[in-house]
Amino acid sequence: MRIAAFALSAALITGGARAQIINDRQSVSPLREQALADKTAWNLVESLTTEIGPRPAGQANAARAKDWALQTLTRLGFKNVHAEQFLTQAFVRGAESAAVVAPYPQSLSIVGLGRSGETPAEGITAPIQVFKTYADMLAVPVGSLIGKIVVLVQPMLKSTDGSGYGVLSAIRRNGPGEAAKRGAVAFMMRSASTDDTRLPHTGEMFVNADHPRIPAAALSPPDAEQLDRMAQRGKPVIVTLKLANTLVEGAPAWNVSGDLPGTGDEIIIVGGHLDSWDQGTGAIDDGAGVAITTAAAKLATQTQRKRTLRVVLWGSEEMNFSSAAYAKAHAAEIPKIVLAGESDTGDGPVWAVRLPPGVAKHPAMAQLSAQLAPLKVPLYPDGAMGGGEDVADLYAQGVPTISLRPDTLRYWDLHHSADDTLDKIDPAKLAQSVAAWTLVLAAAADADIDFRHPDAPKGLGK
Amino acid sequence: MRIAAFALSAALITGGARAQIINDRQSVSPLREQALADKTAWNLVESLTTEIGPRPAGQANAARAKDWALQTLTRLGFKNVHAEQFLTQAFVRGAESAAVVAPYPQSLSIVGLGRSGETPAEGITAPIQVFKTYADMLAVPVGSLIGKIVVLVQPMLKSTDGSGYGVLSAIRRNGPGEAAKRGAVAFMMRSASTDDTRLPHTGEMFVNADHPRIPAAALSPPDAEQLDRMAQRGKPVIVTLKLANTLVEGAPAWNVSGDLPGTGDEIIIVGGHLDSWDQGTGAIDDGAGVAITTAAAKLATQTQRKRTLRVVLWGSEEMNFSSAAYAKAHAAEIPKIVLAGESDTGDGPVWAVRLPPGVAKHPAMAQLSAQLAPLKVPLYPDGAMGGGEDVADLYAQGVPTISLRPDTLRYWDLHHSADDTLDKIDPAKLAQSVAAWTLVLAAAADADIDFRHPDAPKGLGK
Repeated sequence: MRIAAFALSAALITGGARAQIINDRQSVSPLREQALADKTAWNLVESLTTEIGPRPAGQANAARAKDWALQTLTRLGFKNVHAEQFLTQAFVRGAESAAVVAPYPQSLSIVGLGRSGETPAEGITAPIQVFKTYADMLAVPVGSLIGKIVVLVQPMLKSTDGSGYGVLSAIRRNGPGEAAKRGAVAFMMRSASTDDTRLPHTGEMFVNADHPRIPAAALSPPDAEQLDRMAQRGKPVIVTLKLANTLVEGAPAWNVSGDLPGTGDEIIIVGGHLDSWDQGTGAIDDGAGVAITTAAAKLATQTQRKRTLRVVLWGSEEMNFSSAAYAKAHAAEIPKIVLAGESDTGDGPVWAVRLPPGVAKHPAMAQLSAQLAPLKVPLYPDGAMGGGEDVADLYAQGVPTISLRPDTLRYWDLHHSADDTLDKIDPAKLAQSVAAWTLVLAAAADADIDFRHPDAPKGLGK
Repeated sequence: MRIAAFALSAALITGGARAQIINDRQSVSPLREQALADKTAWNLVESLTTEIGPRPAGQANAARAKDWALQTLTRLGFKNVHAEQFLTQAFVRGAESAAVVAPYPQSLSIVGLGRSGETPAEGITAPIQVFKTYADMLAVPVGSLIGKIVVLVQPMLKSTDGSGYGVLSAIRRNGPGEAAKRGAVAFMMRSASTDDTRLPHTGEMFVNADHPRIPAAALSPPDAEQLDRMAQRGKPVIVTLKLANTLVEGAPAWNVSGDLPGTGDEIIIVGGHLDSWDQGTGAIDDGAGVAITTAAAKLATQTQRKRTLRVVLWGSEEMNFSSAAYAKAHAAEIPKIVLAGESDTGDGPVWAVRLPPGVAKHPAMAQLSAQLAPLKVPLYPDGAMGGGEDVADLYAQGVPTISLRPDTLRYWDLHHSADDTLDKIDPAKLAQSVAAWTLVLAAAADADIDFRHPDAPKGLGK
């Protein structure tokens, strides 16, 4: 996933305040118990990760994933199942390697960042310049890093709400460009990861017209520490970096959509993203979100609801093309889209539900609050501002959003790395997430509430 | 490390029995407290892993490691510091890859086994045959696996004493040959690992004259599970495996030796192995053992002892050439070598000390037992039978051995993989191991005991 600003505010709510939020009332809910026992979500993520595997946007497996999604939604009884094509950038990884060539020769574990520049075939060989923090790098003047490979060793904070990733992902997106402006020939950063394996995490970097697109890679945390120790010994540390990547423009991608029709003409959109990074099999990012929202929408509509539940499985979240494509294609429909949300932070468990501003206090939500309580999921009094990267453009057009926040302590160890595989998904946590989404979708689909509450801030989202 | 039979018997001692073994008496020991506070071991393993990094026997970094060892022992005040050259096989890894080509195309995380056969440049493409257990594979007749790539998915038990590795390492050594005898064109096994990362563990395989040397690789645990799931779907699963390795005969290697002379002419030999596998930096396997025994020998000889403490840093443990080379070169000296031991299972903490049979009950060991007690290390009543792979040939010649057994729960997650790096070493555990070794070496160097007790079994060891 990419991370939106709303992730940060959750960190401000203390444990004590959270405890007060949880509703004392708990209600019997056959739907909750059915969702907890349902195996649909597990079966979906098992199938997607096993039969399709990695599915980076614009590449062959993404087309297979689109076909998988069409077949799956049809088999599950969705109506109007179709794929909406749009164009994406495709980052096609080639051979990658890095090694210290002097004074302590040894190989390094790296992975190129999405949109990274390519090196010549023989690689770039240059001295490294280690920075302890991104701020230290930004503090040096333009021109002072000419001929250097920047090595940024700033570690990522491990936290439930993902605020550590907010910091590191901003560095990953902007760091290569800032290093290039200062003259660096390449950029290597400590992986945006909270694990200690030698498997670094990839992710997109930004490319702008004001700086060259230099080669950029993530180092595994042990490798970043190794280079830091070497540099501290005082001799110049010379590294060779080879990245043979291709950035393809205008590759086809698809948002796959299916409806569970309601009795009225209002629409609620939920989903996860079908595309994944190329190192793992996209289990937690975002096979889990695809599975949770698809299963929950089915469970929530066993009796027909007033509003249509539409599941959209987005096709280019990691390179950030599917949100705009969907909002543009459905601009005329936006007045009917009364709510949107994406599940894109792993298997769970969900620890907070944020409805649009003002909605949690509405009397009609008291029953939902009581139903959620046994799952240990409070309705937060402050509303969702943004609901995931793929609904950001809908949100910017005024569509209210929901956010079901999963515990991400383990998620940030794994995501965007080769370790994002099925075995990392906990079926019990996945089931809790399905139950929380099911209850929220069932309530929202029948609620006599206009989610476009006057309290809702407009025009934010990304 | 390789594992010897003695590892298995420890599993038979129950927790209750262990508790009784711990001596109630605990003694004040300034030497123990000094060893716990000493930083020598940490500094050694930090230096070796940072400045040398991976150091597979017979390759360039192993020669750098030899020079590092000569300089280090000299700097620490050892006498008669020298390198003893011998010849080893060198396993030189080339490009490696594996991928499912049908029906679910995606790449796999593999690492070639030491001594693996090479594939043609275009790789071997063949259907897989999955076996749940090694016994299942052995049960099929010769000729029944012609044209198949064997995929063995048997998992490894996680246990403190390493018994799980005893099972899997035997499969790794013998499995490729047994598969080849049955007609298989290649062999892939679930990594001899207890972790769930995509970083598989390498290690040696045996090559014998009765079967071809087929290409053989370890799959990460998630990849083994992935292939198992694919195979269960019923369609033939086709895999392409590429391994460009070279097995070099007669490459130079060195055992590096240094003495801390005693007043008499008897010698105690301890050490770890300088060589490592090529994926990680050889921190737990066996930078830790090099560091622990070198630091402990220094600490134990601050006052001159009766017996000489000799530290030997072996040069080809992983390919299994240094033990025989040392025993052969020192055959004439064996009557004077009264004790030998190797530290080769990680940073610690030590949870059991095994002296040669009969010695633990000797009255002279009561003080040692009391000194060890605050470290939570009991003297085991049953004696050591073997003391590490590099002293196996000394043991076979009748040299008594000691075994200080570290907790290996985390060790088997990491060893022989890219994750064997400095950050995995816990300084507090390392210090406890140094303290245990220091106390044992100080006691053994001055003990008025002939460790060649009549109870000692002769001629065992490997």
